[in-house]
Amino acid sequence: MPILTLLTDFGTADSYAAEVRGVLLSAVPGATLVDVSHEVAPGAVRTAAYLLGRAWRRFPAGTVHLVVVDPGVGTPRAALAAEFGGHRFVGPDNGALTPVLEGATVVELAPSAEASATFHGRDVFAPAAAALANGAALASLGTPPASPPFLLPAPERRYDGKTLLGTVVHVDRFGNLVTDLTPDLLSRTTTFQVEDSAAGPLRRTFADVPNGGLVAYLGSGGTVEIAVRGGSAARRLGVGLGGTVRAVRG
Amino acid sequence: MPILTLLTDFGTADSYAAEVRGVLLSAVPGATLVDVSHEVAPGAVRTAAYLLGRAWRRFPAGTVHLVVVDPGVGTPRAALAAEFGGHRFVGPDNGALTPVLEGATVVELAPSAEASATFHGRDVFAPAAAALANGAALASLGTPPASPPFLLPAPERRYDGKTLLGTVVHVDRFGNLVTDLTPDLLSRTTTFQVEDSAAGPLRRTFADVPNGGLVAYLGSGGTVEIAVRGGSAARRLGVGLGGTVRAVRG
Amino acid sequence: MPILTLLTDFGTADSYAAEVRGVLLSAVPGATLVDVSHEVAPGAVRTAAYLLGRAWRRFPAGTVHLVVVDPGVGTPRAALAAEFGGHRFVGPDNGALTPVLEGATVVELAPSAEASATFHGRDVFAPAAAALANGAALASLGTPPASPPFLLPAPERRYDGKTLLGTVVHVDRFGNLVTDLTPDLLSRTTTFQVEDSAAGPLRRTFADVPNGGLVAYLGSGGTVEIAVRGGSAARRLGVGLGGTVRAVRG
Repeated sequence: MPILTLLTDFGTADSYAAEVRGVLLSAVPGATLVDVSHEVAPGAVRTAAYLLGRAWRRFPAGTVHLVVVDPGVGTPRAALAAEFGGHRFVGPDNGALTPVLEGATVVELAPSAEASATFHGRDVFAPAAAALANGAALASLGTPPASPPFLLPAPERRYDGKTLLGTVVHVDRFGNLVTDLTPDLLSRTTTFQVEDSAAGPLRRTFADVPNGGLVAYLGSGGTVEIAVRGGSAARRLGVGLGGTVRAVRG
Repeated sequence: MPILTLLTDFGTADSYAAEVRGVLLSAVPGATLVDVSHEVAPGAVRTAAYLLGRAWRRFPAGTVHLVVVDPGVGTPRAALAAEFGGHRFVGPDNGALTPVLEGATVVELAPSAEASATFHGRDVFAPAAAALANGAALASLGTPPASPPFLLPAPERRYDGKTLLGTVVHVDRFGNLVTDLTPDLLSRTTTFQVEDSAAGPLRRTFADVPNGGLVAYLGSGGTVEIAVRGGSAARRLGVGLGGTVRAVRG
Repeated sequence: MPILTLLTDFGTADSYAAEVRGVLLSAVPGATLVDVSHEVAPGAVRTAAYLLGRAWRRFPAGTVHLVVVDPGVGTPRAALAAEFGGHRFVGPDNGALTPVLEGATVVELAPSAEASATFHGRDVFAPAAAALANGAALASLGTPPASPPFLLPAPERRYDGKTLLGTVVHVDRFGNLVTDLTPDLLSRTTTFQVEDSAAGPLRRTFADVPNGGLVAYLGSGGTVEIAVRGGSAARRLGVGLGGTVRAVRG
């Protein structure tokens, strides 16, 4: 049975996610619907891309991933369908699909006459995702985009003298600061600093520091994270999305 | 496989929704459970009715919709099961089922001896929904209500001189103000006003005004909505549920 | 088709729950995934145990319950799999599984070389739950624990003179105070007091007091609860988790 995942900024207090679920189950009887998240902040395209980049690869090949965040309703912004790594994706051409577009086959969805002017998630994106889940070929949904899809800019390597500067790309529920620093950029003697606080060298895990201590470690998404063991680094350090983490060579 | 939807004021931090899910899956093996929402404010019957009215029709015929909001536990308030438009509904007789009761076949659930006095969602409503999903006839669950089910009053047309006054019936996550004004009540020259702010004529979509601009448009639920493009109309205008939107004839 | 439930402190704004869902659906095609809750406060093991204790028994025999709360990543804390009452459970050895460990068959999961040091929910617990859902025997996942699993201490009976003192073990969305007082501890003349407020004798249901009134009743979890009809007892009384409810013999 086809699996469809949902990643939106709809929240869960309105009927929007449910209406999309209804459209999908009406078109794909027996489908398994799975939430990635509906708690993306309204229009937070970068967060959507981050969550998608982490989640999609955990699902089995053949899964269809539906992303509806800031779809630019009523604007000329295109809707895309893409195929990458044995998975299919449907979402707006605003960067939310960035993690899966490089090397992907992409089409721009043909405009639909019936679509409401305001709820493309339900009226445009969901039917396209349903068609893919039912076995439609990507090419049957649209045509190659006239211009290349919009991609979020990859984080630039920034330096302050010899110090590499990482950017906080996500703050999770626990207040952990997820950076864009990958292990290959670091030496064995690198230590980390956030604002005026030292987070020490890269540790294996939280438990390598005492409770309440600041710790840098390789996160489950493959990049360096800064945490407070048993607490919130975001709150303790007053640092959020876009904040800077310094990787100091020893 | 049967589909059952859940619409409650349980929230998602307690075990209540899970206990209902367990009862449903125990009674209907292989059922597909779909959340409409569990974030209805405690006892907000009108919000539940609004969400149900939007969501149910998106699901395939045969779906069973379970609504548990302010069920008036321990009071003489009846529990209802209804059939309408090829769908079945189970919920309290407090108005939450209003959008599907007109023209529906309705029965009052027979009282159950085993039910806890406090958790009718789990002990009364869920078993009834499960029975319907398993193919039980409506009539097997109870008898026609002695008195007509309680219906939420339809919004009254209000006027201030020649100006039609609409009511805000829902505020969504984005701060959009959903009114009860339908297109047939409007002329081509109608413009909208909320408090002291002009929202202009009915536009096709958000994108017809600049970012930050106030916009009136026909929402995806079929009524006029007032929004701020890229912002929250509720916050900007200080207007919430029950607020007034003026439809001024040009 | 196997049913797997999820109970975590992941929240729903990150990709963590989705990554676990992806791992489960990849390993157990066609599985039915059901959320118990992801809103357990970070590390709130006692809340997780309370929710698990209520929810698990509502699901059909054969269900696998996955609990990931404060798994003590990177510490020597063990991961457990257990079988009890025809259900299987996977979770950390920190007390979260307390309600199902007495009389259970228990194994300690064999350590996995591939696991990330920080996301055991995805890399250790989920694969074990998937294996059980696929029919693996408990004994194939590990060996009997060297020392007995950690159990949360059962609430101690406390007295103030002749007055029995109950403890608030959960505060639900409605502000109801769930205590650990069971009916067998009470006499027919017992009345309840919280701080300086009298909640009267045990009533059958909310509706036995006027709107806004304080009411004690036997909750759907089998213990005494204190509520305000149509309001929040937690807010009204300023009492939360761990607070005291006095059961005064008449």
